[in-house]
Amino acid sequence: MNINKHYLELQESYLFSTINHKVAEFQREHPDRKLIRMGIGDVTLPLAPAVVAAMQAAVAQMGCKSTFHGYGPEQGYGFLREAIAVYYQRFGVTLPADDIFVSDGAKSDLGNILDLFDADNTVLIPDPVYPVYVDTNVMAGRKIVFADANEENGFLPMPDRSVHADIIYLCSPNNPTGAAYSRGQLEAWVDYALSEDAVILFDAAYEAFICDEDLPHSIYEIEAAKRCAIEFCSFSKTAGFTGTRCGYTVVPSELVAQEIGLRKLWLRRQTTKFNGVPYIVQRGAEAVLSEAGQRQCRANIAVYQENARIIADTLRGMGIWFTGGKNSPYIWLKCPGGLDSWTFFDRLLAEAGVIGTPGSGFGKNGEGFFRLTGFGEKAATEVAMKRFQNLFA
Amino acid sequence: MNINKHYLELQESYLFSTINHKVAEFQREHPDRKLIRMGIGDVTLPLAPAVVAAMQAAVAQMGCKSTFHGYGPEQGYGFLREAIAVYYQRFGVTLPADDIFVSDGAKSDLGNILDLFDADNTVLIPDPVYPVYVDTNVMAGRKIVFADANEENGFLPMPDRSVHADIIYLCSPNNPTGAAYSRGQLEAWVDYALSEDAVILFDAAYEAFICDEDLPHSIYEIEAAKRCAIEFCSFSKTAGFTGTRCGYTVVPSELVAQEIGLRKLWLRRQTTKFNGVPYIVQRGAEAVLSEAGQRQCRANIAVYQENARIIADTLRGMGIWFTGGKNSPYIWLKCPGGLDSWTFFDRLLAEAGVIGTPGSGFGKNGEGFFRLTGFGEKAATEVAMKRFQNLFA
Repeated sequence: MNINKHYLELQESYLFSTINHKVAEFQREHPDRKLIRMGIGDVTLPLAPAVVAAMQAAVAQMGCKSTFHGYGPEQGYGFLREAIAVYYQRFGVTLPADDIFVSDGAKSDLGNILDLFDADNTVLIPDPVYPVYVDTNVMAGRKIVFADANEENGFLPMPDRSVHADIIYLCSPNNPTGAAYSRGQLEAWVDYALSEDAVILFDAAYEAFICDEDLPHSIYEIEAAKRCAIEFCSFSKTAGFTGTRCGYTVVPSELVAQEIGLRKLWLRRQTTKFNGVPYIVQRGAEAVLSEAGQRQCRANIAVYQENARIIADTLRGMGIWFTGGKNSPYIWLKCPGGLDSWTFFDRLLAEAGVIGTPGSGFGKNGEGFFRLTGFGEKAATEVAMKRFQNLFA
Repeated sequence: MNINKHYLELQESYLFSTINHKVAEFQREHPDRKLIRMGIGDVTLPLAPAVVAAMQAAVAQMGCKSTFHGYGPEQGYGFLREAIAVYYQRFGVTLPADDIFVSDGAKSDLGNILDLFDADNTVLIPDPVYPVYVDTNVMAGRKIVFADANEENGFLPMPDRSVHADIIYLCSPNNPTGAAYSRGQLEAWVDYALSEDAVILFDAAYEAFICDEDLPHSIYEIEAAKRCAIEFCSFSKTAGFTGTRCGYTVVPSELVAQEIGLRKLWLRRQTTKFNGVPYIVQRGAEAVLSEAGQRQCRANIAVYQENARIIADTLRGMGIWFTGGKNSPYIWLKCPGGLDSWTFFDRLLAEAGVIGTPGSGFGKNGEGFFRLTGFGEKAATEVAMKRFQNLFA
């Protein structure tokens, strides 16, 4: 029996285990120091009351024969797909509910969508990047080329027409940098993808954090994107669903490759390898999109945005270069004093008791950069940034 | 951009859409006829009270900051994996909780496990079979050979040592036939797999329906299976979780292929392409395994087993050959009068108003056979079998 040998080509990912190890060691040696975690990529606020109520009602239904729900449609219940289609209207995007696939989160679909593509495709991935984009393609044995994101381009790489690509990853607002593409920039990427007969895998997991009215929330705000892009969205950060698991993937019926409609392929993949998202969770997601749910979720997002603003204001005041912080819970800063990422991590931990994420863990272009997140507590964030300021002023 | 051309090799699956079409047409033409659905593969009884209570408590926790759960471990919470390990003890099987992976159901993991194997592997699949085993391998471009299940071998095919296989699918108790392997028969399969350096993908989704004390519930009741088998279990039929989505996959640390531990590969796959099962659902699954949960779920299973018994008793009384019905919710009968599957379907529908599933939809060896299920209502099942008896006596 032959195993998939590409798994042996995977890099071991030591980023978070190394962070945990260093933090544990430091805490052991300095048990009295109160550490502030500013590197977490998880939400900390609970589910909205409207969501809780909807899920309680759904659980009760599941306990009663006449209202029990067994197998649901693999594509997701119509009530949720329709609510998502209505949500898209606020961006001026019209999508048929049939082009929307309910997922258990962007991570699963971003990995599984690759089933539809041959191993013989060149993948274009930004650097720095959320490691999953790279790993899922290494597992499949695909050729990967990187698009350099750096200070010069504000960590918003643009198409290089001398580079051929078949599959293009874009994440905006970005993890880890928080940078967000403008409409014009996304148009350029759509043009490039159409000219290359490439597909864009657009990760919109953080669209709900966008404040700038000019910035696009969905790649389909560029109409031609329906012919070349698959969009992955998630309730994880929008509604605190990191432990509840729900999102949605849009595969427009206009998206055709080698005369085959990708929507039909994705439907076949999901009906064969997936049995849908729990009914209870889909009712919770529907509640996220209700008026009350939106109000409550926005209030939680505003808390994270406020933390991000506190971080951004401090850095701006110190003249430290950064992206993010405005349309994203992430702030990506250039390490002061030209320090490399891990040295900066060590200093910040040892001298300020603040934990962040070294940018080098996200790729070679992350060297010399550092990620802080706004998912913590406001008071702790303020203390952390005061300590940061004292240390590096 | 190259799509995965193997998707073009997939057979369109018309089985259930054809059934639905025929039933809809018949109901239109005969609106006064009360039809009885005896072909459903979905549960009809609601979640157990213990499960409902556990999920309500978990939803409440998720609504409160101090008890909120964000990202869980991709492998599943320890509280559930430990409860599953305890459950295995009742079969005399000892597994470390670390070898247990919580899934969102057997279907996802049965499909996704194939990521770990090269396309260059020969897959041995029984015929008749749950179509997903075939389709997931066609999608990957693997060579498939079939093991003939038929009346002669009681739809329990045994290893043919003249056939080479790298990946072997076994489902016991079986869908669609309800036939269940004995310990000795599974030992023979384990021997064969070990001699072939093959891996057995063992689908134990229906183990909770086993009544015969001699029949194995887990392939690991054969100790050597830890070196060659991955077991897929599900709460779908055990606890009515078809719309709630939870199961578990066991990848023993003893399972090594080409000197690589498969457990480690599966962990890497899941940590890269999956973000875990909802916290709420895992608390529900934990409750399934509690004393009260087990009592309540067993009571529901007993209802389905009683329906299956009614079906089996009728067929036995009529001298119709069948498998299943005792250790399974499924009954697989030889169509009376030598009718082919669809002709039998049409007659049963038109003249008895009873809907089942033509065996030919599960593979060539299903021709001339028919599946009935015990997931309906007792009263309706009794009426259906009386009509059946009158029609074919």
